Amino acid sequence: MSDNSLALWFPQPPTKDPTVITSTDNPQIKEARKLQRRRQRHKSQSLLLEGVRLIRDALQSNAHIDTIFFAPDLVQANSGAQNLLAALMQHSIPCQPCTIEVFKSLTETQTPQGVAAITALPTLPLPNEATLVLILDQVRDPGNAGTLLRTAEAAGANFVIFGPDTVDPFNDKVVRAGMGAHFRLPLRICTDWSQIATLLPPSVTCYMAQADAKRVYDAIDWTAPAALVIGGEAAGASRDAYLHAAPLAIPMHGPVESLNAAVAGAVILFEASRQRRYA
Amino acid sequence: MSDNSLALWFPQPPTKDPTVITSTDNPQIKEARKLQRRRQRHKSQSLLLEGVRLIRDALQSNAHIDTIFFAPDLVQANSGAQNLLAALMQHSIPCQPCTIEVFKSLTETQTPQGVAAITALPTLPLPNEATLVLILDQVRDPGNAGTLLRTAEAAGANFVIFGPDTVDPFNDKVVRAGMGAHFRLPLRICTDWSQIATLLPPSVTCYMAQADAKRVYDAIDWTAPAALVIGGEAAGASRDAYLHAAPLAIPMHGPVESLNAAVAGAVILFEASRQRRYA
Repeated sequence: MSDNSLALWFPQPPTKDPTVITSTDNPQIKEARKLQRRRQRHKSQSLLLEGVRLIRDALQSNAHIDTIFFAPDLVQANSGAQNLLAALMQHSIPCQPCTIEVFKSLTETQTPQGVAAITALPTLPLPNEATLVLILDQVRDPGNAGTLLRTAEAAGANFVIFGPDTVDPFNDKVVRAGMGAHFRLPLRICTDWSQIATLLPPSVTCYMAQADAKRVYDAIDWTAPAALVIGGEAAGASRDAYLHAAPLAIPMHGPVESLNAAVAGAVILFEASRQRRYA
Repeated sequence: MSDNSLALWFPQPPTKDPTVITSTDNPQIKEARKLQRRRQRHKSQSLLLEGVRLIRDALQSNAHIDTIFFAPDLVQANSGAQNLLAALMQHSIPCQPCTIEVFKSLTETQTPQGVAAITALPTLPLPNEATLVLILDQVRDPGNAGTLLRTAEAAGANFVIFGPDTVDPFNDKVVRAGMGAHFRLPLRICTDWSQIATLLPPSVTCYMAQADAKRVYDAIDWTAPAALVIGGEAAGASRDAYLHAAPLAIPMHGPVESLNAAVAGAVILFEASRQRRYA
């Protein structure tokens, strides 16, 4: 994207020194800060990424990066950030310097690394054939949702559905916990199960861990096409999920009532991965 | 514990109304608040728990509960908290009412349930025979450490070691993520591997997930006595851990570099649990 097309997105900063943004009220910064809100992310189809690791993941996945904000005073002490900036400039991505104060207004990170990117929301195509799908249903904890996305990628899932009453996949904390999976694994947002059903091939069987289930998770044939539903820890899954998913149990020792949602997902997804490795 | 012995622990509150604490400077409240600090917890061998669920877990595990603080205005809307208070009073545990403002000064929870307890630090005895042990090494993230403790209990681990440069097990966030496991599963703090070695029976083999390992985690015989070392996500495990633990690999798809520390622990601990179930 050229500097001209960037100008269509964001008005020029009205600072006296055009090279360094010094005010948190700068219009470009104000627009970027709005991306902390779900509605604005989806309206503009953009995402604000913070940190070297995530931006490098986006770059390596050929995500569309609109613009970079960086704080020279923070980047100075960080060779990783410096190398990343050099790579971004080689890709002709506009890199906009700003003061530490301005940079910190963009991010909720306690100790920011000094580099942030506005990228297009990833829209990876769904695979023609899906044999392992993860569905989040009423998962409201952003850390768990992001960890589940990261785990699903590692276990070989084909795509992930963010179902009813689930946190926005592009929420800042979800993206950080996802560790770049957002840019490599297709994901879809579905507000109800009728939408979810249209995304699942007819060959796929849906399963969901339930406390009173009789079938143990490792007694299921995970080499067949399958979808795993993970409910939220506080609210569980929606009523519709129970209509679509067959119950399975994770046997637990002692008086433990349940597992963390991300842990339950990991145990089952990696059992699927294990069976497929030996199939 | 009688009211008299409580008076030995905490001086009487100097409020005009002795029944409700109205000042955040109340000496009893100031002492309780100090338990947010690691040093104070270990010096006084006490812990401040917040929330109905955790206090109920402590009560059910016969943990020693010294005193309860509660905010009547918060508890009013919470039947679970009311039932808990009734049960605590039946156990003759002193229940000290305080204002919402005073109560909120005790906890970092955003929406507190209005009940907090000072309990003795749990000191459960180690089992005579240990066949599955979890060792945390440089795990600094409190959410991961607590989730690992909860997962270890569910997978049937005998005890958990909080090893070098690992977060304090009684840190507020670790306790919340542990979901009561602190009161049911023995745990020990070890500052170095020579200490860890004294706690492990000679029959135990130590394993640790490593990126370049050749042996896959599910090719190991987990029916034999074993210990699993989990390193921190940022720093990995300490150098000494590599001297004591045999490497194992969790095969991953795509360009995923690593799993979340709690997820890696869950995948391996539940593989051990699965093998033992079928043994």
